[in-house]
Amino acid sequence: MDDHHSPSATSTLSELQSGALSVTDYTTRLLDRINKREPQIHAWAYLNNDAALSEAAIIDGVPTFNAPILTSQDATAVRLLREAGALIIGKTTTTQFASTTTGGPTVNPHSPPGKAHTPGGSSSGSAAAVADGHVPLALGTQTGGSIVRPASFCGVYGYKPTWGMVSTEGMARYSTTCDTVGFFARSVEDLELVASVFQPLAAIMGSASSPREVFPPGSGTKVALLKTHVWTDLDNSTPNLERAWLETRDRLIRAGYEPVEVSLPSEFAAMTTYHANILAHEAVAQFWTFYTNPEHRKHLDRVIVDGVEKGLQLSRSPETMREAYDGVTKLRTLWDEWAKVWDVIVTPSTRDCAPRGLEWTGDACFNAMWTALGAPCVACRGWWVGGEGG
Amino acid sequence: MDDHHSPSATSTLSELQSGALSVTDYTTRLLDRINKREPQIHAWAYLNNDAALSEAAIIDGVPTFNAPILTSQDATAVRLLREAGALIIGKTTTTQFASTTTGGPTVNPHSPPGKAHTPGGSSSGSAAAVADGHVPLALGTQTGGSIVRPASFCGVYGYKPTWGMVSTEGMARYSTTCDTVGFFARSVEDLELVASVFQPLAAIMGSASSPREVFPPGSGTKVALLKTHVWTDLDNSTPNLERAWLETRDRLIRAGYEPVEVSLPSEFAAMTTYHANILAHEAVAQFWTFYTNPEHRKHLDRVIVDGVEKGLQLSRSPETMREAYDGVTKLRTLWDEWAKVWDVIVTPSTRDCAPRGLEWTGDACFNAMWTALGAPCVACRGWWVGGEGG
Repeated sequence: MDDHHSPSATSTLSELQSGALSVTDYTTRLLDRINKREPQIHAWAYLNNDAALSEAAIIDGVPTFNAPILTSQDATAVRLLREAGALIIGKTTTTQFASTTTGGPTVNPHSPPGKAHTPGGSSSGSAAAVADGHVPLALGTQTGGSIVRPASFCGVYGYKPTWGMVSTEGMARYSTTCDTVGFFARSVEDLELVASVFQPLAAIMGSASSPREVFPPGSGTKVALLKTHVWTDLDNSTPNLERAWLETRDRLIRAGYEPVEVSLPSEFAAMTTYHANILAHEAVAQFWTFYTNPEHRKHLDRVIVDGVEKGLQLSRSPETMREAYDGVTKLRTLWDEWAKVWDVIVTPSTRDCAPRGLEWTGDACFNAMWTALGAPCVACRGWWVGGEGG
Repeated sequence: MDDHHSPSATSTLSELQSGALSVTDYTTRLLDRINKREPQIHAWAYLNNDAALSEAAIIDGVPTFNAPILTSQDATAVRLLREAGALIIGKTTTTQFASTTTGGPTVNPHSPPGKAHTPGGSSSGSAAAVADGHVPLALGTQTGGSIVRPASFCGVYGYKPTWGMVSTEGMARYSTTCDTVGFFARSVEDLELVASVFQPLAAIMGSASSPREVFPPGSGTKVALLKTHVWTDLDNSTPNLERAWLETRDRLIRAGYEPVEVSLPSEFAAMTTYHANILAHEAVAQFWTFYTNPEHRKHLDRVIVDGVEKGLQLSRSPETMREAYDGVTKLRTLWDEWAKVWDVIVTPSTRDCAPRGLEWTGDACFNAMWTALGAPCVACRGWWVGGEGG
């Protein structure tokens, strides 16, 4: 499907700044791509060509009338992007409330004809739209594995920053403890570009122009390879995962790094349970009206209903919840201590490539721990490990 | 000013349920009180009599047309209240973005004529409206001391639940780590009533009908009196605080309790700095557009501008921020261990009664630690310790 060669946001920005390209012309190109592909991909929950062109005209400084832009409704992250000059072209799809693993209409752009594979979720449309060249950059949120997993399945870069770095104001809520705003792009440069809009990310990154300059091979850069307890616990064979892991190690070595296989203290194995309990507990406050209102409830995904019911049980067991919250906070501190020895820590994004079918967005088992820890993650585009969807 | 005898929400609910009172009649009474008092108190940021009466008519089951109710815009907490049958009568005042100690127009209802005192902040209008009998219940948010302090200054009960118990979705953001939704009322029963709408608070409280039944005097109920490091650090004399403290101890003893003066481990003294650093750091992400846009910035409160600038400095010092976040998480765990020995822990709500004037909403020094710890707090209405505003 790599028949398109959509330019990066970084290179487009240069063209726009030099005057070689207008925002309107660029928008027209994006809309051409989207309108050609959207009937197959279903990445967009809201897209209005005229509205997108009106936004483009405004950025170009061309007067428009009745531009249907409701900036007062923007989430803070979207407002920051607009103020930085970003063209907001539409709203991509998510699973219900970005809170379930039940798939929506979006198709993985890498699917062979007639054999739809999930793009992952919950930020399904963002990953697919970036992978398919509709847009160079998209926002997403991760509460379990909703950025890293779809980025991995769709073969793009996904960046889940440190928890709290990007405001969640104005966005739908699932779990205050874990909800994290992040980004999708087709290159590291483009991730850096979008992150530069968000303080204090920009302040943190201010001193470094590129990760490759910060962590050059062969000069003492310390790279860890970390399988985590999740891999140990996997009950099925994972040939694609094994291949990807060995290939990663070999590529790092060929690039001049000296990766070291390491393991975490055994306490981290409890993170899977802590994370699941915190999500269920916090889902109760979030979905209570929908759960209790029969009219709304019949539209509520089974995964959410089950989560609320589990959360209600947990609310009657304060010890379990205290153990989860205190456990996570202890492990965050332990993680900071453990991780500071390493410059780069490499760990799996997903257990396999994208599952066949659209019903299920896949397993977030490798992502949950990092979300609960609030640790920054970048899903790196590696190579295609195959599988029938490869 | 106690010339009004506004009924509690609990007793009004009985009247409504028995059919002795309609919501419309009750709303008319509230509006009479509000319209009489609002010219002095300035508690309301938005109030529309016709809209309030339309809402009342809907709850009464009377058909209305063009009722100006924008439920799709409701914060999750407001939506939960509406679904439970609550009458939402308007929007009370806050300080700017509920994020500064610079006072707004709201006057403490206990102020003597011509000598305005602050109602406290940032939830200024909620505390004043409840204290002045405009409404029996109000929502507020606390990031520093924005529920407990105004409740205390206005002589009402304030309840800041455990962090995360009530969704912040749809509300203005300041600090994800500390923002907490809570309630104002004129009685403990009314706090219990409003909390019963919010799961999992309701689930936690389900087994107990009243705190007095859970913690009866003379049967081993363990009551701690905790001054905290904040008191030790106070540089000015605090005669009102001393009097209130001794009076509290005496009243507890007279009621049959055996309060014990205790102190916290010395590590807790760092909470003041941790809390301030976390707020400044998280304010950057929140206020960045306003800070960087000259048009918006000139309206931005100096306290917010200073916070963003401090936060920017801190973003360049990851060690300091890691120390703050890890320090708070360690102390949360330590707090859980320390606190579980006690049934009730009594600690000051404020360092003094409400300051004279409206310029400054007062000092949150006694509140910040509990907000950062996420610990539940109830500001109890005690008695009037005097001072010129008393």
